Amino acid sequence: MDQSELKKVAAERAAEFVEDGMTLGLGTGSTVFFLVEAIARRVKAENLHIEAVATSSRTAKQASDLGITMKDINDVDHIDLCIDGADEIDKHYQGIKGGGAAHTLEKMVATTSRRNIWIVDESKLVDTLGKFPLPTEVIPFGCEQVFHRLDAEGLHPQFRLDDSGQRVTTHNKNFVIDLHMGKIDHPHLLKQFLDGQVGILEHGLFLDLVDTVVVGTQDGAKVLPAIR
Amino acid sequence: MDQSELKKVAAERAAEFVEDGMTLGLGTGSTVFFLVEAIARRVKAENLHIEAVATSSRTAKQASDLGITMKDINDVDHIDLCIDGADEIDKHYQGIKGGGAAHTLEKMVATTSRRNIWIVDESKLVDTLGKFPLPTEVIPFGCEQVFHRLDAEGLHPQFRLDDSGQRVTTHNKNFVIDLHMGKIDHPHLLKQFLDGQVGILEHGLFLDLVDTVVVGTQDGAKVLPAIR
Repeated sequence: MDQSELKKVAAERAAEFVEDGMTLGLGTGSTVFFLVEAIARRVKAENLHIEAVATSSRTAKQASDLGITMKDINDVDHIDLCIDGADEIDKHYQGIKGGGAAHTLEKMVATTSRRNIWIVDESKLVDTLGKFPLPTEVIPFGCEQVFHRLDAEGLHPQFRLDDSGQRVTTHNKNFVIDLHMGKIDHPHLLKQFLDGQVGILEHGLFLDLVDTVVVGTQDGAKVLPAIR
Repeated sequence: MDQSELKKVAAERAAEFVEDGMTLGLGTGSTVFFLVEAIARRVKAENLHIEAVATSSRTAKQASDLGITMKDINDVDHIDLCIDGADEIDKHYQGIKGGGAAHTLEKMVATTSRRNIWIVDESKLVDTLGKFPLPTEVIPFGCEQVFHRLDAEGLHPQFRLDDSGQRVTTHNKNFVIDLHMGKIDHPHLLKQFLDGQVGILEHGLFLDLVDTVVVGTQDGAKVLPAIR
């Protein structure tokens, strides 16, 4: 199986966690694309009554087109289960997200959810976070000052550019500064530092949020032991 | 003297801290209005070479009209001195700002400055912070969830409304949720909690930033002893 098929295998296994009556959180990305298809199939086949909150307009449109009832995050009381992809997951199920620059919305949905599941192919599992550059979302006003502070702290910041060399902007019209650290030895300390930085709306460290990881492997989907 | 005259007295005393060659940070508000006038007079009278960064377009326009060279915060290497008002200051010079919903930009300028001075009338000095509602700036996506979290923590949140009952929006097109706590016993703990909340861009607690407070009193301007 190629990477895309591994993602599909994981997504289809994760769709089995959906139960009738749930409010779901749906992430963003190529793995979630397969997830939404799988959930929509179950909704139709089993006549499930679910509603869902999306972290991007792309996912919202796909889900809505497939007949899933979509809600605005501000209109739900809570979210029962959020299923999303991740860019890196360590052995304690701490992760990095934001490769698609949607980590602020994704984190909002994740922290509103009672349970979070990540679906990935094997390549996303790592011993230590940080090979994947850690995204931060930074407001334009003073972004160069934020950059200098991150640089002074030795965090190897780089503004994310698009194919034409322009700075990538997020849903909130902010910039993305990626931290090319190589290795994040102390994710909670880093979180605290970044949380305290003026001008950073949100960063891509997702800590202590996920208790179940579903991995697509050559031997099929593998649900890693639940922790937390 | 009325409150406006007390503000003017403090502003004019604070303008004396400006030195030739400085890059200044200029805050926002009624007290800063007098400050900008006083600085502009000194610039003209003493032929000072200064440049300044503003925290609002209103201050920028006023200063520019009066002949002060204005710079974008992203184009300066550092700021030597930032002078701003405050909504409340306790005896340790910890403060609350954001009555004008500009606290995110103000905090960016303040944290970029080597030195910060606050100028206030006497009514802003308090023993304990919190009678003035603490502003937070919250992104629209998920703002109701943020509200529920703040409420669950017992922080008495209220969306700030304008005169026509609409939610106030900031420079960054976000909402303001004010925390009507009455009393903030542990400002650093509260800061840490708010810093860690997904969806809050910035809050109005300004801690450990200011070493000098200039107060307008009936006996004239009083420079409180420098701390820190």
